[in-house]
Amino acid sequence: MALAKSLDASCISDISAINTEADLYVLAVSDDAIASLSQKLPPLHGLVVHTSASAPLPIGSFNHSGVLYPLQTMQAHRNIQFNNVPLFIETNSDVQTKRLRQFAGQLSAKVIVADQLTRMRYHLAAVFASNFTNHLYSIAFELLAANGLTPELLHPLMLETALKAVENNPEDSQTGPAIRGDVKTIEAHLDLLDKRPDLQQLYEDFTNLIHQYYLKHNE
Amino acid sequence: MALAKSLDASCISDISAINTEADLYVLAVSDDAIASLSQKLPPLHGLVVHTSASAPLPIGSFNHSGVLYPLQTMQAHRNIQFNNVPLFIETNSDVQTKRLRQFAGQLSAKVIVADQLTRMRYHLAAVFASNFTNHLYSIAFELLAANGLTPELLHPLMLETALKAVENNPEDSQTGPAIRGDVKTIEAHLDLLDKRPDLQQLYEDFTNLIHQYYLKHNE
Repeated sequence: MALAKSLDASCISDISAINTEADLYVLAVSDDAIASLSQKLPPLHGLVVHTSASAPLPIGSFNHSGVLYPLQTMQAHRNIQFNNVPLFIETNSDVQTKRLRQFAGQLSAKVIVADQLTRMRYHLAAVFASNFTNHLYSIAFELLAANGLTPELLHPLMLETALKAVENNPEDSQTGPAIRGDVKTIEAHLDLLDKRPDLQQLYEDFTNLIHQYYLKHNE
Repeated sequence: MALAKSLDASCISDISAINTEADLYVLAVSDDAIASLSQKLPPLHGLVVHTSASAPLPIGSFNHSGVLYPLQTMQAHRNIQFNNVPLFIETNSDVQTKRLRQFAGQLSAKVIVADQLTRMRYHLAAVFASNFTNHLYSIAFELLAANGLTPELLHPLMLETALKAVENNPEDSQTGPAIRGDVKTIEAHLDLLDKRPDLQQLYEDFTNLIHQYYLKHNE
């Protein structure tokens, strides 16, 4: 909604309020809702895009369809610096792609034309780099809170870990008992997790993955 | 070494160059080397500390021993903002703990007296929040590079994910197909990983962990 305002666009949640003379329609809904919403739209001359990585181009009473997929984690209450967020675009014609590129270029300096498979590969990587990462933070916080300790003491570590991986690269940034092969610490940590076999398993899997990764990459 | 300079301390790597009149000795070596290095030290009146989370207090020809464990990922070439890094301290006497707290307070605003078990619990949480997180970045980068795509496009996402979890908290920050129960996307991602059964397994495990976590926490 903030975005709509800054672009002199309008944000509607009632389909009968639609302006049928607009140049661009952005269907900012969940993947599952794209197809049914597209079908419900009145005949439109403008370009209709969704914002999903995985969904195919929308189909309905319109000739021009496309995708505008932002590679970022977004929640309603967060203000995001949008001008460096990669925007992946695709449409069903060169003319529309040119127009969508122009529009997307007003939002971000990084606009990339990408087909569905490419978008899905970025989305998959994002799930590892963001969704799973965030769940590791949740696990770490839960482990500390369960023992009356202070999860917030992890904040500088979380920020420095991300910053270091961005400024150098993650492969060269790895630290910790797994890459050092510090078996004594690994065993002590597994003992501390004895009430949580699920997290013991995750700890062992990561330790093995890290070990294998650096064996392979240092060959 | 930069730290030593800023503190008017000296940094030595040859044990014969040791100043036996110092107030504090910091053994900044790997866990495995602490015991043997401690044994090799000449008789000392100052406080001898190591920087490990897990190791017991150092033992040697000195009466005052302790620990100064920083909760941060550190590599030689990185300049770290040290004044918000949690420093966990312990010594074998109240007098020495008071002195070490004073010293540590010059380095950081967050000095916490903590026994070995407490330090280990923080270290374990740090392994999840930092070491495993960094490896997820490596996996994401590898998946993109293997398909000729651009890992650096993940940078804004990595930083926003960490920042969001710090400013709100990780539990409320979770996004992605696993928490949405978006089975179609999950299956498409598993298909994309068909050449990497190890990563398929990791993807499935995280998806289940996230699912279970929010079932439990939303009860």
